[in-house]
Amino acid sequence: MSNINPTKVAILGASGYSGAELVRILLGHEGVELVCVTSRSESGRCLADVFPRFRGVGVADSLNFIDPDVDIIKATNAEIAFLALPHGIAAGFARSLLDAGLKVIDLSADFRISDAEVYEEFYGTVHPDPELLSEAVYGLPEIRPGEISEARLVASPGCYPTSVILPLLPLLADGLIGPESIQVVSMSGTSGAGRKADTSLLFAECNESLRAYSVPRHRHLSEIEQELSIAADRKVTISFTPILTPVTSGIYTTVYAAAGNGAGVDELNRSLDKAYGASPFVRLLGENIPPDTKNVTRSNFIDIGWAHDRRTGRFILMSAEDNLVKGASGQAVQSLNLMSGFPETSGLMGL
Amino acid sequence: MSNINPTKVAILGASGYSGAELVRILLGHEGVELVCVTSRSESGRCLADVFPRFRGVGVADSLNFIDPDVDIIKATNAEIAFLALPHGIAAGFARSLLDAGLKVIDLSADFRISDAEVYEEFYGTVHPDPELLSEAVYGLPEIRPGEISEARLVASPGCYPTSVILPLLPLLADGLIGPESIQVVSMSGTSGAGRKADTSLLFAECNESLRAYSVPRHRHLSEIEQELSIAADRKVTISFTPILTPVTSGIYTTVYAAAGNGAGVDELNRSLDKAYGASPFVRLLGENIPPDTKNVTRSNFIDIGWAHDRRTGRFILMSAEDNLVKGASGQAVQSLNLMSGFPETSGLMGL
Amino acid sequence: MSNINPTKVAILGASGYSGAELVRILLGHEGVELVCVTSRSESGRCLADVFPRFRGVGVADSLNFIDPDVDIIKATNAEIAFLALPHGIAAGFARSLLDAGLKVIDLSADFRISDAEVYEEFYGTVHPDPELLSEAVYGLPEIRPGEISEARLVASPGCYPTSVILPLLPLLADGLIGPESIQVVSMSGTSGAGRKADTSLLFAECNESLRAYSVPRHRHLSEIEQELSIAADRKVTISFTPILTPVTSGIYTTVYAAAGNGAGVDELNRSLDKAYGASPFVRLLGENIPPDTKNVTRSNFIDIGWAHDRRTGRFILMSAEDNLVKGASGQAVQSLNLMSGFPETSGLMGL
Amino acid sequence: MSNINPTKVAILGASGYSGAELVRILLGHEGVELVCVTSRSESGRCLADVFPRFRGVGVADSLNFIDPDVDIIKATNAEIAFLALPHGIAAGFARSLLDAGLKVIDLSADFRISDAEVYEEFYGTVHPDPELLSEAVYGLPEIRPGEISEARLVASPGCYPTSVILPLLPLLADGLIGPESIQVVSMSGTSGAGRKADTSLLFAECNESLRAYSVPRHRHLSEIEQELSIAADRKVTISFTPILTPVTSGIYTTVYAAAGNGAGVDELNRSLDKAYGASPFVRLLGENIPPDTKNVTRSNFIDIGWAHDRRTGRFILMSAEDNLVKGASGQAVQSLNLMSGFPETSGLMGL
Repeated sequence: MSNINPTKVAILGASGYSGAELVRILLGHEGVELVCVTSRSESGRCLADVFPRFRGVGVADSLNFIDPDVDIIKATNAEIAFLALPHGIAAGFARSLLDAGLKVIDLSADFRISDAEVYEEFYGTVHPDPELLSEAVYGLPEIRPGEISEARLVASPGCYPTSVILPLLPLLADGLIGPESIQVVSMSGTSGAGRKADTSLLFAECNESLRAYSVPRHRHLSEIEQELSIAADRKVTISFTPILTPVTSGIYTTVYAAAGNGAGVDELNRSLDKAYGASPFVRLLGENIPPDTKNVTRSNFIDIGWAHDRRTGRFILMSAEDNLVKGASGQAVQSLNLMSGFPETSGLMGL
Repeated sequence: MSNINPTKVAILGASGYSGAELVRILLGHEGVELVCVTSRSESGRCLADVFPRFRGVGVADSLNFIDPDVDIIKATNAEIAFLALPHGIAAGFARSLLDAGLKVIDLSADFRISDAEVYEEFYGTVHPDPELLSEAVYGLPEIRPGEISEARLVASPGCYPTSVILPLLPLLADGLIGPESIQVVSMSGTSGAGRKADTSLLFAECNESLRAYSVPRHRHLSEIEQELSIAADRKVTISFTPILTPVTSGIYTTVYAAAGNGAGVDELNRSLDKAYGASPFVRLLGENIPPDTKNVTRSNFIDIGWAHDRRTGRFILMSAEDNLVKGASGQAVQSLNLMSGFPETSGLMGL
Repeated sequence: MSNINPTKVAILGASGYSGAELVRILLGHEGVELVCVTSRSESGRCLADVFPRFRGVGVADSLNFIDPDVDIIKATNAEIAFLALPHGIAAGFARSLLDAGLKVIDLSADFRISDAEVYEEFYGTVHPDPELLSEAVYGLPEIRPGEISEARLVASPGCYPTSVILPLLPLLADGLIGPESIQVVSMSGTSGAGRKADTSLLFAECNESLRAYSVPRHRHLSEIEQELSIAADRKVTISFTPILTPVTSGIYTTVYAAAGNGAGVDELNRSLDKAYGASPFVRLLGENIPPDTKNVTRSNFIDIGWAHDRRTGRFILMSAEDNLVKGASGQAVQSLNLMSGFPETSGLMGL
Repeated sequence: MSNINPTKVAILGASGYSGAELVRILLGHEGVELVCVTSRSESGRCLADVFPRFRGVGVADSLNFIDPDVDIIKATNAEIAFLALPHGIAAGFARSLLDAGLKVIDLSADFRISDAEVYEEFYGTVHPDPELLSEAVYGLPEIRPGEISEARLVASPGCYPTSVILPLLPLLADGLIGPESIQVVSMSGTSGAGRKADTSLLFAECNESLRAYSVPRHRHLSEIEQELSIAADRKVTISFTPILTPVTSGIYTTVYAAAGNGAGVDELNRSLDKAYGASPFVRLLGENIPPDTKNVTRSNFIDIGWAHDRRTGRFILMSAEDNLVKGASGQAVQSLNLMSGFPETSGLMGL
């Protein structure tokens, strides 16, 4: 990889947490030139002013936020655009950017659900561009690297879904667990709720606070069940409880599932190893070794541990990721690497 | 209630977190006179020196820690002794104190498990005094207030068990859930691990960290399953995953259980209301209202919310308590109130 | 003290952090009946709905927020009103409530500065009611208990000022330090900034963050210098730097001042002891014993430690308080106790 | 820079926080090959087992901790050794490693104080190897890059000293402040206290806690005053108060100093710009722009802001750094870069 012909990249919605995390990663990515960042609220200010963390690094002192405008973005010669925009807003830009010849990696939910009716059921609004759904690739690089490489439009997965799908997919595909038995509790850091002025997200409200929300039907269920159903080759419905915890970043997911077909830990080990033994970002910790979110903050790793609860016949799977990295922006850069022909780990091995 | 004839109380092991919380509560309890605190490590120092928080309050400036010695404790005229000692150690003192004519409220695990073999299975050691087991009352004041009132020896429940048993007990007793379907994830603050020098509990190790531990078989399973089995009138085995979170105090428990016998939210509401509608410390929040640990810190309340996940046919129950108060010392003082003929809420309504 | 004739109390602005802390304290105050809480944003909801922490306690389940209206407040027979309102807003209500025959304890800055020009200089707006300034008593109960007892209008001190003034006042009055040498750094928890939707106060912005603000001229300088000047009997000007830290509540103040007139630690000890030896809420820790905010959270204590830096000839004074209690609502209730003839500690000894 | 001939590096004491931070940085440093890590307590375990964060990265899965033994270290062909050992222990290894032909970068205090008597005064023990003191270079790369480049033995500065010295040095050298007027308050994260089992560092003791310690004479005063005295060309004595705060990493320093010789903000701006305008890691934020530790965590930047308090004639300087990076391991790698002929920023630009 060289700097001679870097991929020119734009980020739409770069003033939120996912957008800022994309900036952080891309400022250190040798194959990428960040040429455009948009934000309606920060238009006219440079990256380093909005995010003092970036001061003195690469283009951060010189690159100014602009209002999102596809013609101007196209004029920057950007080849790939990340959409770190709210769902519902992202779809419109995706269409325009594709028409303008850019590839698009969308971090919103707009193209994750292949069935527009399911989107409407979970997001409470008619899908803004159902025609594009068939083209979008659900961007889990561990699962469909080939499709991502060829894609014009990648729907990068949600933070919770990544943490739930990756541990479960091999077990469902290999028939080791009962598809109807899956029950999930996920804890998230507060950055997952976004950088928005909301009293419920104040430090004084989140510190010393553990609280569930969106029970019993969080929106992310839609994409989780879609992907699990594909793997199981049948409709999978699960229980899912998200819990807000006082960490800035990190998701910790605990999954219960009934061991099926006489499967034990050996079969579970083999299934996970077969699926992820060669994956650079999935770290299989082993039996009875729970992961810890602090080991994955600011990295693109997802750590997975597991146990066999022989007393009840259930498997327990635990995963830890940084919701902003493997759960959002890092994973999106993984897709960019595949789409640009870079090594999958480019720009993503920082600790 | 009056100060004329206060109950004289001793605390053995008052330098740990549960012991200090007992001190905090009892310094504000008008019916109690704290006459003795023991601690091998702090012997000779006064309460206010070891816990500057208590300086200037009641006896804190004058009452010195002593080594635990039953004769000396008896000489203080203490009528009731709290044992905030490690399991295995507590039992020996319980026997001696009972013989000396005191009543005992034990916060350790030593007398919680009525079957000495189960104790041995989960605690890895022969029970130190199996003969006393039949006399001990498992001290959940919401469940068996009458027995506690009459008891000489109360085994005060563990922090996790309180948070799991209280929401589930009525549903099992009323046959609303499948006893074999219970799956629990509980998050705890770090004070639950005790005041011990252990690098894994350092601020720098716990901050920004979410991590499970003791999977798949935490010791508290033994008392949880014991009490659930009594309620269900059959052997109940559950899955339980404890997770350490960066809060000082608080337990948040999420329970999944299959709705049985056609039960829906109405039946669930009625069952919980029947069980706890008159309980001063169990606050029933209602359907789809998750509790929040920050609403119960330093109070003896346990808040319970619930949801019916109709897509999967499961109930979700969520409880929040302060692990040191309703999960330990506050609940123990509830028992003291019953044993001393005080109103159940005496000394426990501080916010 | 008895419940027979409790003082009827109203809180205007009870949905902010100071207001909620007043509610917390007064729900446990045996001499007080809370008869009215106002909040424009929460009008119509009961206390327990807005603050689930209070559910099941006293009037919290039945007392509804109303819009602030002096006629309605008067109709509740409230005798004393707390104003937990923004500066500029409080003054108008103070006037009306006084006219309606209530006494007023104002937690805003509106009546703290006796000189309307200084108010204008620091608050950037003409004083809303300069005529009332001469009547208002700056409500530090340790300094002027008699005036508070007699007052119709108490201006309760700010959080930073309390932490700075109390340690310094005796030393200035006794001539132990150079008035021109005072330099202060104060750290505050985020609740000090209020319960307002502001992205800079989000958990993800405050966690792992230490940052100064309002340098070099924070508004609280005006009242600090006013009170120090009175004690020194000359104009005192100081340096003051406030720093936001990731705690929910707590202020930690470090003061440097040049030892004057040959004063050493003995003189300092005597001066502080003379001033506060009999004060129930000022705890003098002693030489080289720094306080710790965690020992004063949710309590009305302020802990003071000190050192003599003989190498430079300076005294170092350190104080710790809960910004919402001794720094705001607890101190205001201290004034209420004095005004109502209650013991100064009524309702304020909870730990 | 290329991988062809990387510098071989050993870390002694790699299981503490500074050591682990060195590992983190060096695993991503393209010019360095980590060939040896020592730890008595972790001997035999590989890096990734002790620090799961490093799993799957570079040599972390294969490099095992060994007991510190100079012969074995020499046999690894290490050219430079970092000492992340306690003071008093480091000196002995420094001597042996130098004799074995390695260069040494010592992160302990052993070679920071050029005067062995001052060392004894502040560290309470006779200096272990006073002869080496004259050779050691106090390793502030911004101040003496040339000496560091040529050094065999670098004494890398302490965390507090770096945060105090860098803002003050230009002002003293340029005569803009009164040397006798300097008063400092520094806040530190808990990782600064090291990875040691100490109940006072438990999460439950540090959370919601702000507390000073080591007043009035912290050990770091010795090196701070040494360097300030060199710059001022006269003996400088300062006041310094360190405060422990609930962040994992970060130091925030506030300095007061009397403006001298008629200096105002213009002179201050020029002085700082002249000193650091070309420094890659010192970011000058400007007047009335306080830094924020969260902008420098895990980076080697130190951010400096300032204000002129015209009311008192004082300058206020504020600096923020990561105590483990610019305050310890990152700065040490800066020295390694200079000693190895690498660009000063090699391996240190990660965000």
